[in-house]
Amino acid sequence: MDSQPQESDITTGQKVNEDCAVIGFSGDGVYSSIIAGLRSLQHRGQESSGIITYDGKIHVKKGMGLVSEVFKNADPMPGIVGIGHNRYSTSGSKGIENAGPFVISCSLGYIGITHNGEITNEHELREELKHDGYIFTSSSDTEVMLIEFVKEISRYGINEGIKRGMERLKGAYAAVLMINDRLYAIRDKFGFRPLVLGRTFNGYIIASETCAIDALSGETIKNVEPGEVIEVFNNSYKTIFKLDGDVSHCMFEYVYFARPDSIIDNIEVFQARVRMGMRLAVESPVDADVVVPVPDSGRAQALGFSKATGIPYSEGLIKNRYSERTFIMPDQKSRLAAIKIKLNAIKSEISNKRIVLVDDSIVRGNTMKYIVKIVRDAGASEVHVRISSPPITAPCFYGVDMKTKNEFIAANKTIESIKNEIGADSLAYLSIDGLKQAIGIKSICISCLTGIYPEYVPLS
Amino acid sequence: MDSQPQESDITTGQKVNEDCAVIGFSGDGVYSSIIAGLRSLQHRGQESSGIITYDGKIHVKKGMGLVSEVFKNADPMPGIVGIGHNRYSTSGSKGIENAGPFVISCSLGYIGITHNGEITNEHELREELKHDGYIFTSSSDTEVMLIEFVKEISRYGINEGIKRGMERLKGAYAAVLMINDRLYAIRDKFGFRPLVLGRTFNGYIIASETCAIDALSGETIKNVEPGEVIEVFNNSYKTIFKLDGDVSHCMFEYVYFARPDSIIDNIEVFQARVRMGMRLAVESPVDADVVVPVPDSGRAQALGFSKATGIPYSEGLIKNRYSERTFIMPDQKSRLAAIKIKLNAIKSEISNKRIVLVDDSIVRGNTMKYIVKIVRDAGASEVHVRISSPPITAPCFYGVDMKTKNEFIAANKTIESIKNEIGADSLAYLSIDGLKQAIGIKSICISCLTGIYPEYVPLS
Amino acid sequence: MDSQPQESDITTGQKVNEDCAVIGFSGDGVYSSIIAGLRSLQHRGQESSGIITYDGKIHVKKGMGLVSEVFKNADPMPGIVGIGHNRYSTSGSKGIENAGPFVISCSLGYIGITHNGEITNEHELREELKHDGYIFTSSSDTEVMLIEFVKEISRYGINEGIKRGMERLKGAYAAVLMINDRLYAIRDKFGFRPLVLGRTFNGYIIASETCAIDALSGETIKNVEPGEVIEVFNNSYKTIFKLDGDVSHCMFEYVYFARPDSIIDNIEVFQARVRMGMRLAVESPVDADVVVPVPDSGRAQALGFSKATGIPYSEGLIKNRYSERTFIMPDQKSRLAAIKIKLNAIKSEISNKRIVLVDDSIVRGNTMKYIVKIVRDAGASEVHVRISSPPITAPCFYGVDMKTKNEFIAANKTIESIKNEIGADSLAYLSIDGLKQAIGIKSICISCLTGIYPEYVPLS
Amino acid sequence: MDSQPQESDITTGQKVNEDCAVIGFSGDGVYSSIIAGLRSLQHRGQESSGIITYDGKIHVKKGMGLVSEVFKNADPMPGIVGIGHNRYSTSGSKGIENAGPFVISCSLGYIGITHNGEITNEHELREELKHDGYIFTSSSDTEVMLIEFVKEISRYGINEGIKRGMERLKGAYAAVLMINDRLYAIRDKFGFRPLVLGRTFNGYIIASETCAIDALSGETIKNVEPGEVIEVFNNSYKTIFKLDGDVSHCMFEYVYFARPDSIIDNIEVFQARVRMGMRLAVESPVDADVVVPVPDSGRAQALGFSKATGIPYSEGLIKNRYSERTFIMPDQKSRLAAIKIKLNAIKSEISNKRIVLVDDSIVRGNTMKYIVKIVRDAGASEVHVRISSPPITAPCFYGVDMKTKNEFIAANKTIESIKNEIGADSLAYLSIDGLKQAIGIKSICISCLTGIYPEYVPLS
Repeated sequence: MDSQPQESDITTGQKVNEDCAVIGFSGDGVYSSIIAGLRSLQHRGQESSGIITYDGKIHVKKGMGLVSEVFKNADPMPGIVGIGHNRYSTSGSKGIENAGPFVISCSLGYIGITHNGEITNEHELREELKHDGYIFTSSSDTEVMLIEFVKEISRYGINEGIKRGMERLKGAYAAVLMINDRLYAIRDKFGFRPLVLGRTFNGYIIASETCAIDALSGETIKNVEPGEVIEVFNNSYKTIFKLDGDVSHCMFEYVYFARPDSIIDNIEVFQARVRMGMRLAVESPVDADVVVPVPDSGRAQALGFSKATGIPYSEGLIKNRYSERTFIMPDQKSRLAAIKIKLNAIKSEISNKRIVLVDDSIVRGNTMKYIVKIVRDAGASEVHVRISSPPITAPCFYGVDMKTKNEFIAANKTIESIKNEIGADSLAYLSIDGLKQAIGIKSICISCLTGIYPEYVPLS
Repeated sequence: MDSQPQESDITTGQKVNEDCAVIGFSGDGVYSSIIAGLRSLQHRGQESSGIITYDGKIHVKKGMGLVSEVFKNADPMPGIVGIGHNRYSTSGSKGIENAGPFVISCSLGYIGITHNGEITNEHELREELKHDGYIFTSSSDTEVMLIEFVKEISRYGINEGIKRGMERLKGAYAAVLMINDRLYAIRDKFGFRPLVLGRTFNGYIIASETCAIDALSGETIKNVEPGEVIEVFNNSYKTIFKLDGDVSHCMFEYVYFARPDSIIDNIEVFQARVRMGMRLAVESPVDADVVVPVPDSGRAQALGFSKATGIPYSEGLIKNRYSERTFIMPDQKSRLAAIKIKLNAIKSEISNKRIVLVDDSIVRGNTMKYIVKIVRDAGASEVHVRISSPPITAPCFYGVDMKTKNEFIAANKTIESIKNEIGADSLAYLSIDGLKQAIGIKSICISCLTGIYPEYVPLS
Repeated sequence: MDSQPQESDITTGQKVNEDCAVIGFSGDGVYSSIIAGLRSLQHRGQESSGIITYDGKIHVKKGMGLVSEVFKNADPMPGIVGIGHNRYSTSGSKGIENAGPFVISCSLGYIGITHNGEITNEHELREELKHDGYIFTSSSDTEVMLIEFVKEISRYGINEGIKRGMERLKGAYAAVLMINDRLYAIRDKFGFRPLVLGRTFNGYIIASETCAIDALSGETIKNVEPGEVIEVFNNSYKTIFKLDGDVSHCMFEYVYFARPDSIIDNIEVFQARVRMGMRLAVESPVDADVVVPVPDSGRAQALGFSKATGIPYSEGLIKNRYSERTFIMPDQKSRLAAIKIKLNAIKSEISNKRIVLVDDSIVRGNTMKYIVKIVRDAGASEVHVRISSPPITAPCFYGVDMKTKNEFIAANKTIESIKNEIGADSLAYLSIDGLKQAIGIKSICISCLTGIYPEYVPLS
Repeated sequence: MDSQPQESDITTGQKVNEDCAVIGFSGDGVYSSIIAGLRSLQHRGQESSGIITYDGKIHVKKGMGLVSEVFKNADPMPGIVGIGHNRYSTSGSKGIENAGPFVISCSLGYIGITHNGEITNEHELREELKHDGYIFTSSSDTEVMLIEFVKEISRYGINEGIKRGMERLKGAYAAVLMINDRLYAIRDKFGFRPLVLGRTFNGYIIASETCAIDALSGETIKNVEPGEVIEVFNNSYKTIFKLDGDVSHCMFEYVYFARPDSIIDNIEVFQARVRMGMRLAVESPVDADVVVPVPDSGRAQALGFSKATGIPYSEGLIKNRYSERTFIMPDQKSRLAAIKIKLNAIKSEISNKRIVLVDDSIVRGNTMKYIVKIVRDAGASEVHVRISSPPITAPCFYGVDMKTKNEFIAANKTIESIKNEIGADSLAYLSIDGLKQAIGIKSICISCLTGIYPEYVPLS
């Protein structure tokens, strides 16, 4: 991915296109298991981190920053079940009062929730719930989810209440609800965001990605299916129901979000990316000397491009491994300076060579312009940019923080003019069909490519 | 590199085998240039960071932590020249009073120093200087260097003083001395540690590695040669003298320390590593299906191994990009758990395959044992470990924090028994001759491989 | 006051017998006015501080520590109205989630509250509200008040809703409710805790004590009467109703809590304390050379004692003005050592003299024992302890953190045995009648002296 | 004292007229004894605090802030001797590198120093020492002292070296030198700043004031006499020499600096202040109803004024006990607002009365103007200001941070015009003769009153 993370990382201190991580754990070693899971899912959110555990009483700890910062000196939190959250906000303003997970006490006991996604009818539901007498302490859509579930469960019991809540909640959600000592894995009927159930030697884990299960040396039991709700309680699990619907898995998880070692809805992300690169090579071949990935986002795709074409793969760009942390340079004059601290060229691999530069996506295009310049400055004779996903032209309302059409370079410009703007000798994107084939799932959400949404989205 | 950084990162919060970064800058934009340089050299030290600038007065700021943490909210420091330091201690106890750079005021004005390396006769010099009436405020060998230079310069003037100081200082040092508004790049006559001179659009830079010059979009002028002292002053530079000696560049810079995009003593590190992998393939071939690097330390070497053998290269292990920061798990039971947060396997690339696992080096061996287990657990049918440097068997006294013979697995065990301990199907190291040929320099320091030292080392 | 504050200040880091401060402000300069008010009321709570302002949107800032610490570097919060709180917890566990003020959004808009006192039927109300479907995010009784008011106001409108809420809330409360841009000063019908309304040059202020109005150079308009609710809106104020009831002002405000310069329910605290000292002198005279207060709590009373007897007043004990901050000595062996850092004797004023040592109250008695020792060690020939309030023998349920009967020295011992325990030559307390006459109000709450409570208190 | 502390406390965050505290301890319980001593001497410096202990090795801890903040969570520092320092800078710029105590290692071992005062020939000595080859790491005059002593001791041995060092050091110093396990109490021959030797049940203590000895329940052995050096070693002490000279004790210690419970050069500070008030009453009587001190600085003096005149004493002004901590109001418009947070009137004691307002001194006069206004606003019919020290008209070079003549209101104005400026009905200062008689020592330093200095002071 060219795009914002790198830019905004440096220049504004904000990552704008990552969503959230959720974890639930039931068993022994709740606290350390959740910590390990959250650390393995740090890529899904770095703004804040929080854990809630239950052992008859409720224990809460949240803070701004990475898991390793928030839980640096923390005493273990006691608990027989717990939930955790890494956040990057996609709705609600920043601030610790909006950081997940959320928990309340009510007539049912303690109810907590951790959520990844975005509720598209959050505003309407909030007003309706206020009208019903419910009150809110934050601007987070997660609190709306929680209150909606509390309302329905109070009236209809847990199983029916969760079902009715899901029928009213529009949009994308992969969540873990904790009702006292019971956990409920909840995934919207479209299955926009991933959610899996696993087993470790000492308990059950629900997580956004399988890499969290691997981090605990556990084994994946199953995906939480779109529309499915699974209860984990008393050292066992069971599906309590499953809503029907048109499945629509977010393609961006495969393209960029998820960790390559995760298996999302039965597809290993790494292989999907390799296939994207292979497919891209078939669709838009180029005569060149070396295939170079933009690290770390284009590596698997570049390996695929190389494999499909026989053009040698090499690591021609080096990423500073300490640049994940955002930092605003004191008197930084140019964006180029900011990117140069993150990326540098291996001159021997690039000089006097025709380079195929492979990345996952382009959002705004600014970063790619400077990467092309770095490659050219290192002596490349030609620079051919290959993007292993189609152009993003429409906002996402399902949990990816891409909201304004104006920010997408591909929304307003032809590929030719983008090519010129980034200074490449050629530029090609993967086709939508190619993407679908590469991922290997037909029912994927491509709203950000087409502007056609599977469900209600708010006007704005 | 298998080894301590990864282990101790997690389990003890200490990195034990990284040395330091030095920067000097003279020109406009001193503060932001030094910050950018230090950030690009963060891999050489994460314990503390400091900057000293001079504009008639002296300005000092130091702190524990990464550059981005220490200089997070700092106002720009005014200056026409300045020096900076990232530290990982190789001598002296920890603590901010031992963090570089150092500066004093004396009859000559303000004299500051930033140093990478290790003074082997530090103890003798300190006692001698005390006997001469000099006083010390820290336990750092850098302070000893500084006082020694001050003493000689006071008596003999700058040029002669630096020369006499260098003749008395034993061991490894690549340093920048700041005498009021003049900078002096100083490199010991063996040239153990790297040091380069560059030019940016607005000034001169002296740095440990060329990647710092690249980060400023500057150009490398020349290496500071072993024994050479270069003065930077008044917008020009000149060599003021050069001591003769037997050159002895640290091989470990090429094997592990330096960034792959840096050019150290005219050798690009990345290509040296590719050649190590190629050479290793020739020396110790193996019949296998895929070459997998230990990320990020074995990547270039694995590419070379693949290139030399034709066995496909792939990224079969994924490194958590947020695991650079040290963190002690709250109730971590096993080392395996700690490593699993840092590394995970791409099962599709490993399952049912014969894997060549390539890394740069093995120091203690514990981490490699667990990596082999991760690869086996992912379904590898065979795991062949190939280490692209020879076995480390002796302590380093020249700036690498490997001091106790007992800590080296290869010091006490045969390759066969190491193979069994780490659980590999086969294990091979690069030969010393192979290493020399791969690096392409004959005069390299291989004391840690042979136990034979080019110069005085302290008994202990 | 001998007692816990001083002891526990040092030895446990906890102040146990202070209640809270509340502030509301409507007009220009909301933020700085609330800050100044909270700082002037810091004596009523040092555990946490918080401010909520409203300007169409809600702005919240809370933190643990003194006002000057929490709002150290804060940007001014915008607002046309706002409320503030200094907290020392009397119910609810510690932690930032229990720190006031509280605010929620609901169908009525934004509703915030800041509260001083203690709701005696908090547990029953919470369960009832949960049963009605309300949810809670903290263990604070303030949240119960807030939800109760929200519930009633939702049904009955603001004025009637507040009235019905007050009829259901048992116990002590002096509160400011903020409903969007309107403030409501609310005081329970007993008037346990103080609350006043004032006018500054740029707005209206509601505060726990008049000293906050003085800090803004404002003028006091009136007490908020027991059972009264005053609305402040649109640059005017009006009483919206007043509940009847038996007035019962907390005597401990006059004895210890309130600042001496405050006027509480028309009685200036300083003069009340002077009269306590005078009355004590009449009730329990003693032949002595000098009257010495325990600083700062016994000063006005000692002046009164001196005035009534003609025995000269002097400052024979000096208080370390930097000992307000709690601090646990690293390896403190004795309580005497802890107290010696807070208090020392002026030997010239004490040596060879018969001392009348005056303080406001004794709770546990440990501190007084050590003060008597300090006075004796300074050479006093006799030490006569005079306490200007009656013995405390019963728990308070109305906002003073004295809960367990066992902690009161006077609950279990005769005055003679207390005298022996503290090592005094004589000991006398003020009588209940004397206290009433000194304060000059008949309808005061003396439950902690008698164990008879004006209203429902929870069993335990 | 009207004056800067209060003003600058609030408005600039800087206290400008307090000097430093020094402590040395030899025996058991070094760390906790030094902590207790430093806390009892917190009034002499709040900018930074530091401790150095020796147990064969050296242990250092320093930090910005109060003792209770710097040593909040610190593990006890091991040691058989140690020295401590509270600092308010009188020379040298701020910053932790200038915070005391200082320690170096040299041929003699470890030498540390803690110092209260000001070296007037610091600049000349520094240059001379630099010329001799000595180096400096800070801008503190304490470091100059330390190096000077190191230089002389290296040549002449400890006793003779200290003597020669003292002969070269001009100005004011009360210091503790720690040479390995030996302590040396050192006081300049004028005895400007106080220094005492005491014994506790487990060791010897050297301290700025006797209140530190009292805090340890110790007994005062003797003053360190002007020019005297006392060695504490091996559980005994002895005077090693005593330089002759004209004694010149700082009168400001008695007037304002020292704690009232301390005994400075055999004079109890409290009684000296009472006598200042009595003498002032004789020199400048006034017909009035009540004598009111400015708390806490004018209390003893007001008691003396009352005693000499028979006019009743009362506490008509109340000081906010949480205002010691500096705090800049967010959008504070007037100085009056700042002072109102610190001081308020007891109206009943002031209204319709003729007030004698007593304070220790006036430096700039701004605060007194507002205090008079507060008293008038509380209804005083007349306000007569009585200052119990003579007008300050000249800078101090001996450790009090009053440097610029322009800052003294009395330097440029008649008493009549000061009276008008502060808005008093009458104003009187104590005479110089009266001050001397009240203190009871003839040989006091009154340079700030006369502009005549007992010794060399730097031009500026």
